[in-house]
Amino acid sequence: MVQIPNTPAPTKSPAPRPVPTSADVARLAGVSRATVSYVLNNTSAVRISEPTRRRVHEAAKELGYVPHAAARTLRAGHSRMVLMPTLPVPAGPLYSQFVHDFQGALSRLDYTVVQYGATGLRGDDAARAWAELRPVAVLVPSPGIGPEGVAVLKRSGARAVVTLSPVAVEGARALLLDHADVGQSAAAHLYARGRRRIGVVVPEEPGMEVFSAPRLAGAREAVHGTDATVTELSLAYTEESAAALAARWRGLGLDAVFAYNDEYAMLLMRALQDEGLRIPEDVAVIGADDLMLGRLLRPRLSTVRIALPSGRDLASLVDRAVRNPAAAPESQERFVATVVHRDSS
Amino acid sequence: MVQIPNTPAPTKSPAPRPVPTSADVARLAGVSRATVSYVLNNTSAVRISEPTRRRVHEAAKELGYVPHAAARTLRAGHSRMVLMPTLPVPAGPLYSQFVHDFQGALSRLDYTVVQYGATGLRGDDAARAWAELRPVAVLVPSPGIGPEGVAVLKRSGARAVVTLSPVAVEGARALLLDHADVGQSAAAHLYARGRRRIGVVVPEEPGMEVFSAPRLAGAREAVHGTDATVTELSLAYTEESAAALAARWRGLGLDAVFAYNDEYAMLLMRALQDEGLRIPEDVAVIGADDLMLGRLLRPRLSTVRIALPSGRDLASLVDRAVRNPAAAPESQERFVATVVHRDSS
Repeated sequence: MVQIPNTPAPTKSPAPRPVPTSADVARLAGVSRATVSYVLNNTSAVRISEPTRRRVHEAAKELGYVPHAAARTLRAGHSRMVLMPTLPVPAGPLYSQFVHDFQGALSRLDYTVVQYGATGLRGDDAARAWAELRPVAVLVPSPGIGPEGVAVLKRSGARAVVTLSPVAVEGARALLLDHADVGQSAAAHLYARGRRRIGVVVPEEPGMEVFSAPRLAGAREAVHGTDATVTELSLAYTEESAAALAARWRGLGLDAVFAYNDEYAMLLMRALQDEGLRIPEDVAVIGADDLMLGRLLRPRLSTVRIALPSGRDLASLVDRAVRNPAAAPESQERFVATVVHRDSS
Repeated sequence: MVQIPNTPAPTKSPAPRPVPTSADVARLAGVSRATVSYVLNNTSAVRISEPTRRRVHEAAKELGYVPHAAARTLRAGHSRMVLMPTLPVPAGPLYSQFVHDFQGALSRLDYTVVQYGATGLRGDDAARAWAELRPVAVLVPSPGIGPEGVAVLKRSGARAVVTLSPVAVEGARALLLDHADVGQSAAAHLYARGRRRIGVVVPEEPGMEVFSAPRLAGAREAVHGTDATVTELSLAYTEESAAALAARWRGLGLDAVFAYNDEYAMLLMRALQDEGLRIPEDVAVIGADDLMLGRLLRPRLSTVRIALPSGRDLASLVDRAVRNPAAAPESQERFVATVVHRDSS
């Protein structure tokens, strides 16, 4: 055989140290594997003496043994895992806080929360991928999963599927987040302030239409049958896009704008002010989310405050559903939009 | 037996429909379990005819069978799971975008990213909890894990442990995020602008000291041996806290402030302006993160831009480490702080 020079030999990995198993722990502690399992899973049904417990813990520590969640799941048929797909768009501060609280509350109830990353799969195909992890509960924060996806998850051992979306899904518990109500509240407020030519910002960033479309529809509904009009305004979250919109503002003849949320409102308000338009005299502006930054702007930004369910309430709903999966799926309308009137409208 | 009235009988759950197994699929398709496994795991090593493949897929679909990731992990000894503990504090927009990109990139490389929620466990105890899921790689975004935690993860099958923190951890690949450099850049900028009495904001919110302590230390280092002083300023992210700090500002005799980040800078700048202080004449202000909002403030906010590694670069580093775990752990200094000088300093 001819050796070809200059071809590097494949790097030889050192043989990995074998992963210690519960059998190794049992051997070192001088007990049965069942005893190891009872001790490390904190089973209270079986009485085991303190010295034996200590021996098992010491052996596990010495060997660096870690129980295998997958093995436990296979034995029990379900896990303590609550799966939560991540949003298809980067999360805002309100949602980050909500997820943080939800995870903390479930962790105190002895669940493990995993957020499942972007897979590129959609709808029921995504549900099948989640089902492979055999979660005991799933919280779906964005629309897309259908009745078949819910059924796949339940057949795979999920005792509770909870959706947070504008529409209920058959078989799932639903917290109905009514984004149309946000747009309706904003437009009704602007109408009550005497405005008749209302612009509604629709962000250009992909993935946002889930929220922006119902908000726009809600705004249209609010002024339906009145003398007011609603104009859709496409806006990207860049200074250039805002400046371009502000430059053609006078031609649009609008006297008010619901700017989708507080961040887009801050962006657009600055661009309108730079064009010499006065807020609220020439243009009334309202955002949504009630972020701190709105209170720091001058004029102070009016906003729609959205009451997300508290992370703690939602965690206890998930826990109840896991403990009693047979209870009929409930839909709850939990979205409350309140206008906070400040100086910009 | 006496029936006690008014005590509701326990709700009887209907017997749950049993979870279909690969044996059920094999029976319906008229093939062996091994064939089912080959087909559904897309094993290319074994030749299986198209009609057989189709029969297996149809049977799986009819039964609603979903492969069990845990079982696959047990067989293979490792998963395609990349575990990423969530931060102990709600994430800001920069970090959310980074996580979003990282997940997307790993998903295109056929990994599943799970973010592991808050457990209340710290350091190596947290590492043991992560190890129960047997991830093939772990990205640790905040400090706390030590050499023992890294060893536990590796013994449990993790081929790569990557830390993103100010210090390297033995056994792990490290991307060193040098937050001292952020404080140093900010203070050096203020010094170069002629300021000598520099305040540095330290947020009161819990969990932030990981970042704020090195930033403060870096600022002190920048002016060490000069005639300038650094004063630590405790500030909560509320209008009340900012107003209280602004009210006693003149007594502090400070002519500049590094406000931790752009959001705290916006908060403090507004409070200082409301106290009649002029920015930058009376107080030079600089933030960090280079958020859009800084460009929308008047005066425009100076900031320290922080170059996080790109999600894509980090995903390919993880992938290389998984494919060649024997390669020596590398430390990389990846943090680059750049001052963006605008009008506020």
